[in-house]
Parts: sequence; C-alpha cells; structure tokens
Amino acid sequence: MTTTAAPQPRHDDLAERYAAVRALTCEWAAPLSDADATGQSMEDASPAKWHLAHTTWFFETFVLRDHAPGYALHDERFPFLFNSYYEAEGARHARARRGMITRPTLDEVLAYRAAVDAALLAALPDLPNAARDLVALGCHHEEQHQELLVTDILHLFSQNPLEPALFAAPAKVPVAVPPPMGWIGHPGGLVEIGRAGDGFAFDCEGPRHQALLHPHAIADRTVTNGEWAAFIADGGYADPRHWLSDGWAWAQAANIAAPLYWHKRDDREVWTRFGLDGRREIDPAAPVTHISFYEADAYASWAGARLPTEAEWEYAARGADPAGGNQMVGAGPVEPRPSTDGGWFGDVWEWTGSAYRPYPGFRAAEGAVGEYNGKFMSGQFVLKGGSCATPRGHARASYRNFFYPHQRWQFTGVRLAKDI
Amino acid sequence: MTTTAAPQPRHDDLAERYAAVRALTCEWAAPLSDADATGQSMEDASPAKWHLAHTTWFFETFVLRDHAPGYALHDERFPFLFNSYYEAEGARHARARRGMITRPTLDEVLAYRAAVDAALLAALPDLPNAARDLVALGCHHEEQHQELLVTDILHLFSQNPLEPALFAAPAKVPVAVPPPMGWIGHPGGLVEIGRAGDGFAFDCEGPRHQALLHPHAIADRTVTNGEWAAFIADGGYADPRHWLSDGWAWAQAANIAAPLYWHKRDDREVWTRFGLDGRREIDPAAPVTHISFYEADAYASWAGARLPTEAEWEYAARGADPAGGNQMVGAGPVEPRPSTDGGWFGDVWEWTGSAYRPYPGFRAAEGAVGEYNGKFMSGQFVLKGGSCATPRGHARASYRNFFYPHQRWQFTGVRLAKDI
Amino acid sequence: MTTTAAPQPRHDDLAERYAAVRALTCEWAAPLSDADATGQSMEDASPAKWHLAHTTWFFETFVLRDHAPGYALHDERFPFLFNSYYEAEGARHARARRGMITRPTLDEVLAYRAAVDAALLAALPDLPNAARDLVALGCHHEEQHQELLVTDILHLFSQNPLEPALFAAPAKVPVAVPPPMGWIGHPGGLVEIGRAGDGFAFDCEGPRHQALLHPHAIADRTVTNGEWAAFIADGGYADPRHWLSDGWAWAQAANIAAPLYWHKRDDREVWTRFGLDGRREIDPAAPVTHISFYEADAYASWAGARLPTEAEWEYAARGADPAGGNQMVGAGPVEPRPSTDGGWFGDVWEWTGSAYRPYPGFRAAEGAVGEYNGKFMSGQFVLKGGSCATPRGHARASYRNFFYPHQRWQFTGVRLAKDI
Amino acid sequence: MTTTAAPQPRHDDLAERYAAVRALTCEWAAPLSDADATGQSMEDASPAKWHLAHTTWFFETFVLRDHAPGYALHDERFPFLFNSYYEAEGARHARARRGMITRPTLDEVLAYRAAVDAALLAALPDLPNAARDLVALGCHHEEQHQELLVTDILHLFSQNPLEPALFAAPAKVPVAVPPPMGWIGHPGGLVEIGRAGDGFAFDCEGPRHQALLHPHAIADRTVTNGEWAAFIADGGYADPRHWLSDGWAWAQAANIAAPLYWHKRDDREVWTRFGLDGRREIDPAAPVTHISFYEADAYASWAGARLPTEAEWEYAARGADPAGGNQMVGAGPVEPRPSTDGGWFGDVWEWTGSAYRPYPGFRAAEGAVGEYNGKFMSGQFVLKGGSCATPRGHARASYRNFFYPHQRWQFTGVRLAKDI
Repeated sequence: MTTTAAPQPRHDDLAERYAAVRALTCEWAAPLSDADATGQSMEDASPAKWHLAHTTWFFETFVLRDHAPGYALHDERFPFLFNSYYEAEGARHARARRGMITRPTLDEVLAYRAAVDAALLAALPDLPNAARDLVALGCHHEEQHQELLVTDILHLFSQNPLEPALFAAPAKVPVAVPPPMGWIGHPGGLVEIGRAGDGFAFDCEGPRHQALLHPHAIADRTVTNGEWAAFIADGGYADPRHWLSDGWAWAQAANIAAPLYWHKRDDREVWTRFGLDGRREIDPAAPVTHISFYEADAYASWAGARLPTEAEWEYAARGADPAGGNQMVGAGPVEPRPSTDGGWFGDVWEWTGSAYRPYPGFRAAEGAVGEYNGKFMSGQFVLKGGSCATPRGHARASYRNFFYPHQRWQFTGVRLAKDI
Repeated sequence: MTTTAAPQPRHDDLAERYAAVRALTCEWAAPLSDADATGQSMEDASPAKWHLAHTTWFFETFVLRDHAPGYALHDERFPFLFNSYYEAEGARHARARRGMITRPTLDEVLAYRAAVDAALLAALPDLPNAARDLVALGCHHEEQHQELLVTDILHLFSQNPLEPALFAAPAKVPVAVPPPMGWIGHPGGLVEIGRAGDGFAFDCEGPRHQALLHPHAIADRTVTNGEWAAFIADGGYADPRHWLSDGWAWAQAANIAAPLYWHKRDDREVWTRFGLDGRREIDPAAPVTHISFYEADAYASWAGARLPTEAEWEYAARGADPAGGNQMVGAGPVEPRPSTDGGWFGDVWEWTGSAYRPYPGFRAAEGAVGEYNGKFMSGQFVLKGGSCATPRGHARASYRNFFYPHQRWQFTGVRLAKDI
Repeated sequence: MTTTAAPQPRHDDLAERYAAVRALTCEWAAPLSDADATGQSMEDASPAKWHLAHTTWFFETFVLRDHAPGYALHDERFPFLFNSYYEAEGARHARARRGMITRPTLDEVLAYRAAVDAALLAALPDLPNAARDLVALGCHHEEQHQELLVTDILHLFSQNPLEPALFAAPAKVPVAVPPPMGWIGHPGGLVEIGRAGDGFAFDCEGPRHQALLHPHAIADRTVTNGEWAAFIADGGYADPRHWLSDGWAWAQAANIAAPLYWHKRDDREVWTRFGLDGRREIDPAAPVTHISFYEADAYASWAGARLPTEAEWEYAARGADPAGGNQMVGAGPVEPRPSTDGGWFGDVWEWTGSAYRPYPGFRAAEGAVGEYNGKFMSGQFVLKGGSCATPRGHARASYRNFFYPHQRWQFTGVRLAKDI
Repeated sequence: MTTTAAPQPRHDDLAERYAAVRALTCEWAAPLSDADATGQSMEDASPAKWHLAHTTWFFETFVLRDHAPGYALHDERFPFLFNSYYEAEGARHARARRGMITRPTLDEVLAYRAAVDAALLAALPDLPNAARDLVALGCHHEEQHQELLVTDILHLFSQNPLEPALFAAPAKVPVAVPPPMGWIGHPGGLVEIGRAGDGFAFDCEGPRHQALLHPHAIADRTVTNGEWAAFIADGGYADPRHWLSDGWAWAQAANIAAPLYWHKRDDREVWTRFGLDGRREIDPAAPVTHISFYEADAYASWAGARLPTEAEWEYAARGADPAGGNQMVGAGPVEPRPSTDGGWFGDVWEWTGSAYRPYPGFRAAEGAVGEYNGKFMSGQFVLKGGSCATPRGHARASYRNFFYPHQRWQFTGVRLAKDI
C-alpha cells in the first residue's frame, strides 16, 4: 500500500500512533447509545458500531492473522460481519443490511477493540516491516473511517424527525468576515504532483509524476454559504442551462433545491442547516458544505467559472500547512467555519473537475489490500484538501479523496477556477 | 369501535386489565437492548420501541387527550413519530423509516409508558363510558401489537447473520405425535357467524349475520412440518400447476422454496428453522408456520384440497376454547408445538380462502378510530384462530386477522378443507 | 372448459360462428398500421398483432395440434411468441417485451390467421366433441381478446402526445338525459347464481349454487360523468377518509385525480376525455368509465353507499337482456353512451365488492386450458355486465370478469348499492 | 458549434454534402417496416423513425426556423415529439416513450424529411454563414444518428426471439489472420491533441492543446474475438480481481458473462453472435465488439495491461487515414472484420481510460446547440476511432465519442496499452 523505503519509525512511535488513533475513534463512540451506534440511514452510510468493528477487523486480519504467529481470531463469525469490500477475503454481510446487526452490542464491539489492541501492541515489537507497514496503513484507514463515522452519524440523526443534537452548540466567537474572493493566476507549464518524500501515502497518490497545467486562475478561498444562498435566490437550481445533464436529472428526480440539511423553517427567509449540534441558522461567512459535484459544477457554471483540476489544486496548495485549518481533533460539533487562510486544508473537501483515475504508472498493492483504492477508479471525482471532520494530520496535498458526483453527505464544498 | 351496549366492567376490572396488558408488553421489552428495540428489518415490521410507544400514543391520544380534561401531552413531538396510519390524526413519520428513531431511547420510551399509565389510571374513575370503551379497545390494540412485536423481533434477529437467540431453548418434553388428519363433514346450510354476545369485538367482526355453508369437510388439525417437508420433496415449489398465478410470480421473483426461516445446514438432509431460541431442527409433528397464503394455497392444491372459507372455519371452531391451546402468556421462546386438541386456537393463524371484505351491514366507527379496520378491506385474506404469539384471551372464533397473500413473517399456518 | 352435456350445435352453426368471430377481429385490425399493431404501451396491454396471433395460436394448439391428425404447425417458432400464460405449454416470450416483435409483420400474422382458419374449417367436420368444445371455447376466448385489443389500442394511442383518433367521431344524436338514480330494494334471502342452463359458460361461472343475499338496495343505473365531476369538485380525490388504504397509497403515488384519459385543457373548466375518436368533451349524461376499483369504492364511500356484491348484481340483472344495450358489433369509436334501460349490459363493466374467488365446488378443467381462469383467483375483483367494447352476445348475467383493483384501462364503471 | 474561420465551402458543395447525408439515412430506412421503424427496445435506444424525424427537426429548427425568413413549420406538433434533449427548446416527449409514436407513420416522416430537404436546399443560397455552419453541423449530427440508427435497430432485432436478419449474410471472403499483437512504444513528452486545422470538428474536440504523455506502449491492433474467448475460458468474468468495483457489481447484477449478442447454441462449444445478418458463429480473427468499458478494463487487467488514454491513442493514430478501414458507406450487414492496417479507424470504437471531461479552455457554443456536448461531460468515458457503423468520412483523430461505462450496444471494442 505504502511503498516507502524510508526507515521505519521506532517501535515506540508506531505504538503511540496506534494507541492515539484507536482512542480517538472510541472518543466518538462515547456519546452514542447502542441504538445510535447500530442504525444505518442509507446504503452509503454504515453504523458507527460497524466502523468501530471494521477498523478492528482490518488490524486483526491483515496484521494479527497474517503476521502474528499463533493468533486466534477474537470471534470467528466477525470477519463475515465486518469485512467491507475485500473480495479476496471472501463472502460478507450485505452492505445495505449493516443496520441489522443489533448484536454484538456496542459494548461487545468495544471489547473486541480492546482485545485486538492488546494483541497488536503485544505483537508489535516482533512484527516484520511489512506488517508494520500494514499497521501504519491501518491507522490511516481508521482515520478515514473516523470521518465516515462522523458524517454517517450526522446523516442518521438527520433522518430522525426530532433532529436530535449529539453535542451542545459551541459558544459563538466573533470571526473575521472573509474578504471578496480573489484569484491566483498561473501561466501554465509542467509541475510535479503526487506523493512526495517518504512519508505515508495511499497507493493511489503515486507515483509522483509530471502534470501539465494550462493557463488558469484558482480562487483564494472556497465558496461561502452566503454566496450559495445568492445562487439559490437567483434560481440556480431551476435553470437547466447551468447543469450537467446527469446532474439535472438527479436534481429533478430527487427534488434537490438546496444543500443537504438546509431547510427554511416556518417559511421565514432564513436558511437553517442541521449539524451535530442540531438545527441552527447558517453562517453566511462559512464555507458552504454538503453539496454534490453536480451542484458544485452548476454553481461554477452560474458563476462563469469552472472547477479546478486536481493538479491545479495540488500545485496551488503546495505551500499550505496540511495540518492547519479547521480539522478534527476530538469528538464535538465539528462544522466548517469562516477562515482567512485560504482554507486549503480543513473545513470542506473541495470537489475538483478531475475524474478519479489512476496516475501514470500506478499499480495496486499485492493481495487483499490491493483492493483498497484501485478498484474504485471509475465514476467518481477527486476531492482535495480535508474537512472539519478529517482527523488533523491525516490530509496532505497529494491526498485524493473520491466520491460519486451525487453524493453529498460528506463535508464537501467548492473552490472556483477559470481559464485565463 | 366496539358497539357493545352491555354494562361496563367495574372500574377495578378495567384498571386491572389495563395494567396487566401494559405489563406484558414491557415483559417482552426486557430482554431487548436499545439497539434491538430500534432496528427495523423491513417496511412491514416495526421496531419494538415503536410498538412500545405507539400503543402508548393510542391511549394518550384517543383517551387522555380527547377525554381527560387538562391533560398535557407527554411530549408534543411524539404524535408525529408514533401515529401509525391514522390520516385523521395528521402527518406522521414515514413507516419505512421507523428504524431511524434512535432517540428517544428505549428508557425514554419506557418512561413515556409509565407517565401515560399513571395519568390514565388516575383519570379512569372519571372517564365517560365512551372513553372507557376506548381504553378497552386500546388494550386489545396493544395485544395485537404484542404479537407484532414478537414477530418483528424474530424477523429482525433473523436478518443478523449471527442468528442470535433471544431466549434459551426450552427443555424438550415428549409429545404425542398427531394422528393422521381426519375430516369433519358438514352438509351445508345457514349458520350464524360474526361477533356474538356482548363481549368485546373489533368492528370488522360484526354485524353478526347469517352465512350459507355449502357441503364440505374441514380437517381436524393443521398441516405439520413433516407434511410440508413431503410437499417440498415432491417438488411442490417447482411445479406451477399447483400455484396461483400471482403466487408463482412471487415465488419465482423471490426465490421461495421453503417456509420463511427454513434452511438446510451444510447440505445435510435435515431442515432447520430460525426461532426466538435460535436455529434448530424442525419438529416434524408441529404445525408448519411462516408460510404465505400463496404457499398455503399451493399446498392445498397439491394435496387435492382447498383452503376453508372463514365461515366454514368459524362454524367448525364454535365449540373450541378460544383461550386454550398454545398461546402466549409471557415473554419466552414461543413457537408452534404438536397438539392433539384440533389446534383451532393457538400455534398458528390459519389462512382461509376468504378475502378480507366487510360483512353485510358493516359500518366503521366514527372518527379516527374508524380507520382501525375498514380501510384495509382490499387485497388481504382472512386468517382465523390465533398463534403461539397471540396473547391468551385475545382470540375468539369471530376474530378476523388479515394479511397480504405474500406475507409470512407472522406465525401463519394452514388447515385443509374440501368440497363434498 | 365448458362442461355442457347439451347437444352440440350442428356443424354449420359452429363453422359460421367461428368465421364470424374471426372476421370481427380482423375488422378491428383493418385501420391499424403495422406500427399501430406492434406497439405495446404497458405490461398490462398487448400489441394488436399479438392478440391477432395469440387467438390463432389458441385454435392451432388446442384444436389442430391436439385433435387434427397430421396437422403441421404453420411456423414452429410461433408458440414461443404467442403463448400467453399457459405454463403447461412451456417457455414463452416475456409479456413485457411483446412490443419487440416487429416481425412477423402484420401481414404475416394475417396470413397465419388465414392458414389456421382454412385448416380448422377443413378439420371441423371430423373433430370429436371435445375438440368442438374447444373451438367454441376459442371463439369466446377470441371475443375476450377483441375487447382487450380495443382497450389496448386505445391505451397505446393515448400515450402518443398527438393523441391520434383511430376513427372519426360519430355524429351527435340527441339523447334522453338519465333520470335521477333510483334504488331497487331486496329483503334478503337465498337466490341461485352462476351458470344457468346448457349454454356456454366459462368454468369460473359454475357450479350454479345458492347464495345468501342480505337486505339491500341496488341502484337502477350506473354513475354518470356528471356525477363523477361533482365528486372531483367536492375534493373526493383529496380526502383519505373516502379511500381504502391501498387505494389512497396508489392514488398518491400515481398522482391520480380523475379517471384515466380525463384532462382539463387550457385550464378551462371543461373536462375532456380521450377516446377512439380522439380528445373530446365528456358527456355528463354518459356512464363514467376508466375508473379503478379503488376509485369506484371511494366514490361509493363519498356517496354514502357501497359497491354491490356479485350475487346482488347478478340477481338484480336476471331479467335484463345480456345482448342488449350498448355493446360492440363492429370496428368503430365505441364508448359508453347515456342509456335509460338500466344499463345492466353494455356501456361499462361494473366493479363489484366481491373478490374473484372460486365458487363452491369449482374445479378447473383438465390440461393446459385449466389455467384459463382458476389460477387468477387472488388479488382481483369481479366486474359484471359488459361494456361498449364487449362483443354483443358475449356477456351474460353469470359472467365473471376480473381485474386488479388499480387497473382502469378497460371500460370500467360503477353502480351503487347500500344496506337497508 | 464549429468555430472555423476558414472559407465556407461553395454552395454546391454544401448542398451536395447535405443531399448525400440525407440520402444515406433514407437508405437505411428502406428495409424497415413501419413497425421496425417504430419499436424502441430500451431507453438508451430510439426508434429508427425517431432518428429520421429528429435529424430533420434539427435542420428545421436551427436553420429554417431561425434563419429562413417566412418558413412555416411542417407540423407544429413535431418539435414536442422530436426534440431530443435541448432544454432551451422547451418541453418534449419522454425519451423512454418514443416507441409509443406509431403515428406519424414512417411514410409521413419520410414526407417530413422531403419537405424540409426541399425547403433547406431552396433556402441554402441565401443563408448567412452562421446558418451554413449549422447546416454543416446538422450533417455531422445526422451522421451520428445514422450510427445510432444502425445500432438501435440491431438491438431491437436482438430482442425479438426470432432474431430476424435485416440483411442476407455477405459472402465469405478469405482474410488474412491478424498477426500477434505488437507494441508501439513512446518515451513520453509533450504532444498536441484536439481539433487540428480548419475542418469541421465538434466543440468538445477543442481547443487544440498540449498534452503530456508518459512513457508507454500501445498495441498495434485491437483485441480479437478469439482472444476474448480465451479470456472467457480462463474465467475472466468470474474473478473479481480483474474488475473495477462498479463493473463487478454491474456484471453480477446483470448476469454478464460474455459480450452482448454472444450466445452458445445448444451447449456446443462455439460462440455465436447476433448481427444485422442474424445469428452466426463469431470470427476469431475479427475485433471483439459490443463490450462495455467495464469489460474492456477487466480484460486489460487480466492481460496485464491497461486502457490507453485518449491522448496516447490520438497521438498514436495521427498518421492513420480517418476515412480508411472498415467504415459504413451504405445500408448492409456492417460488422467488424479482420484487418491488418492497425484498425485505428473503422471496425470498433475503442474505449479509452479517459473520462469525458472538457479540454482546457473549452467553451460550449451559445444557444440551444451549446447543449450538444458540454452537458454530457460527467460519468462517461471517451472512445476513439470509429466503427463499422460510422459513416466513412465522419471520424477523425481528434473525435471524442463517449458512452457510459456499462453501455455496449454500440460497436465498441478495445486496444491495450501499458506503462513502460
């Protein structure tokens, strides 16, 4: 998965890293009841309990089972339940029916976590490098599931007519209003993109390679809720000329007329959104989120612009701090907030106009983990950056997130670009 | 709903009845986790928590809200969540999305029950007769939901690949093997059917009226698992000549080749079934259950017989004890058992060949409770008797249970009849 | 199929009957292009060409192949194409894909008809009685398909945005306005229904048997377009209290707010309907048609009445002339017309409240033709009478037509009844 | 649409071109009955009659209506019927219901064509250049529909269980067996792709721009039927490791186990395919066709290769004759044939690994024709080359054909590439 040839971190570092990642997941589980952790609101989403167990299965299967001599499975029935999509690992429970697993209970899943944690930390000193690479991979894998756990819980709670708040709303703090959008120009030419250096990267981020930029400009910040409200007010959702054909068909069929979780209450003029702290008024200065690629593209068309390519975005973001911005450091009511630092990392994943396809020279890893990324390289679009639900430290400029163009339950947003 | 003009039971009796019914429901909730009580396995089924709350809403709405001066709703948001299908009571949460209600928690729902119980028992002495009739109706209504709660939980657990057992299996006791099936003949003629006397009955059971029987015979017991296994072995599921056209289409589309919950493990020759005590071998002497009308009709056709009409069944069962047989008296691993008393009540609901349509002179009750039965009188078939999940005392000969012909997650079975 | 033991008609009579029936079908084909005759507008409907061929296949298969020594199939590939639903006759083309059969051409199908006609008329003198019964059955079968051909073509043309007229509109003739609806009372008691005498009847019409009527009254005419417009104007389609639960769900899902083919043009106040002569204003005095069982039931509920049972209808119609009224005698713009004779036969098939189930003692015929009626006895309702598209002479009081409760592309209407 | 600034062809040339294109379409209509020309086998396909009329509507609308003073529409009802997807041109008949248009008849549509042809040729001398550009565009548009007409008719005929042949099979001629596949290497570097010169091109082919190739090799011919049969024999359709996740899901759900139109007859070992000349054995030496992107990608994965990018393909094909190879010049049983010239143009459209997205600097044309290409730029993949059903002269190296990854009713094939 990671092809780094660099020196391995010392044992202490990897164990510490492992423990920290595992603890953060459990922190998110803490406010959930067994029912909250079991519900599945749609096929795209999974129960929190399933995320807790699947990430554990990943370590148990690819590290302990394959590399820890004498390890016995915690429960022989769990692989069928908690394998996600690894065909090489055999048959598995249907994705759309994950919400049926009321048992094992949340407590039993937490016990599963504890048992695997103990076994893995005990085995770690003696693991070969290949297995240690898989531990590192599993930590990044788990961070991805942390973000999914957050967005899946948000979606589940949104389907409850009571719209319960998982957390109290944070205290309001005064923020600077973002300035008018500016443009960062580029005359075109060859640049390098893809995984850089010897840090961790997913296989799909490499190989590092040259990419040809054409003359363009990219916005110096993302689109805000206030700007999106203007798009709605201008009839943006009602004019097919702004929309891709597939997007128009999707929006008509699903009655899409605003970002996910937006409603107008009581026919008043104020848009509200649902979040982990319940339903509140939108903040016009914050980045818009929970929009699909189709909506992002329609907005860009309406604005006389286009979406950036992933290469344009990656080059423009080369100087920004991947661990900066509004990213997730613990359980709480995460959401995009107004920012003045360009917002390259944090707040929202930014849709690009690039289809998620392999880089030149890409080869998937051998074995079951080879299914990690490569087999999803059709029909999806690349998103760059990181969101308020991305664990801080998880993102980097070469990161390639990907979703289908209609999906919008992640913290997705948009930054404009244009040809010059 | 009930049109009885008989003297009301004394207050003590109704209060006692109310308390007993309410307690039995809670007894079933006891072994369930919050997750167990929240899951919804299909649109036909509802979460246990929803049953617990809906039955409470029924009393709160139609008794306390409408008849108890000064009563304030326990939670103003609950009617939207827990109204089932009463159009006159306004908008409501979509039936297929009941599994999304992870909050209120099971404990909160139990607190809702306790609060309504206290209010109702306090109000009872002063309630007018019309309201007391609604309390009685609500008790019968809750008994219906007890049976649904049991079958819905069974279905939910069946969707879990672990097939967890809710209860330990009961100790095996020697039983008499049912004798060969015999026939009870009738020469035809006018009989009376429908609600008799002044006890409680649902509106659809009346008015009592004459019905014309034609010469026929009806079996003296229900079909057993062993007989059903012979039907399967004879290719009964593979020969369209036995099947109604709609039934054949259903069976082909859904790959139906055995009763619900039946599987053969490890390709051995023994059929197993899933039940509240997990997966076990079928008992050849026990009544077959979890079959659809279509399957019942195909079996009858294969056996050279037909299904009884509801009038034939009701007349034949006139002397049996409606509170006898294998019916439900408390939480536990209920299931059909071999019987030698004819099995008219208990074990399984018996499909009849009669479409569920109004009796001559039927009129639905006024108001919202008028939606209780009448509006379902198309597309469904009548079932008679009562099952192992029917609360003992709930059934009677005039009872008209009804389901769609493809449904089989209830404890449904079949008794043969034939023209003579 | 027919169990008559009566003397067979002389050869001449059956040959003449056969020739007349076959000619009438071809008369309907005459105004159709090959494209008109090939199109299939929905799974419920079949192409005209398919009706022309299927009725021919019926005679070829059950008479010539089975009873005419040495007969060779006209085309060995046709049985796969033109078998409708006879499982015993083997695999067949999918019903929903009948519109794909652009070849054989209409001319080739007409040649198939001519060839089978010649062979059958040549074989007729030597056929055994059982085969002659099948010829008679085939004639009635073909008459049923004539009606389907008419209604299927009407539906196909209605799906063309041009709404082409197959025929010129007939000249308007002054008609008497039907008088206010009156009621025909009955005190209840035993009557006989079902096939009477030794004329032809389908198997499902027998055996003749006693039926018990309860005290009731039945309307002396059917509901008119004008009365239906009043139902609409009173919000009948918007008030769930009038509707069966299944009916309400159907109407909401399919946006049903008027009979099929009704539209208001240009927002003017006049209802129009589409017919074989194109789109025209409705005639308020004519019977309403193209309504589903659900709509008929909702109308009756709104009107404080109910639908008649099939026994009530059959008894009330016992004195009417089954060959009278507005029935079909040739190709042309058939449609319901105002009548003053009670309208028992002709104009519209009348929905009853009776589910289509077997009569006491019913047994299907042996062999493939045993699939003719019996296997459809679930989920459908009985309609009585006959319509403007029913070939005159085809209907009788014991006739049991049947359709699913949501279907309404036939000339279906409604007559009220009530308990007294 | 075309942005050429080059001198317009002389009137005679454009008129001649127009007449030739229009005549070729009618040549394909000649062997079709009205029914053949009306049938629609799936939503992706359109009736031949619709293609005949829609291409005419294109000229009538965008040229005659907009640019020919005093022109009156041939039939005011036709735009609703024959607009395809131009939102700016208003409401239109539902795409999935085009098969319902049995009228106008094929003859009436041919008369429509003749009327518009006469009007357009009369108007042509006086048309402004912008309108002449639209005539040229309309000719290319019609050529695209010629190919669709051919493939749609093939699909329609394939849905007829008789599998009728539209044409007699051509005489077998001896062909050279293609040599083993060789590789054309490229060291990587900047190349130019996109519309070149001032000939016609669709808007999506431009602007011409630099593209960066990475070191790779591309096959010197396409994959053959024989090679594909080996892929099948090796279990290629049964091993998820070769497949994209979306592709595997598609293949499982649709039971895909061979190219479209392939069957094994009578369980013999020989694969057959359905074509315009009916069902025949496959030619192992001919290019495989009627495969989806998913299948093409799985084959490449199985073969240890990948699909070429569109830039790689276009650069490699720069020297081939776009009007060469096996392309369509008239009505007949077109199909891929063995070739020894590399097969860059003709035989099959070749799937690339490039998502269909806008080129740098792309801008759609103004007005309704701006909907021609741009709005389809999501979810589809680019195909290059041209097929046996592509009108000779229509293709060029910069041409960007596009389809969804599951579609395979076009003459689609595959050429391998690999990283070096």
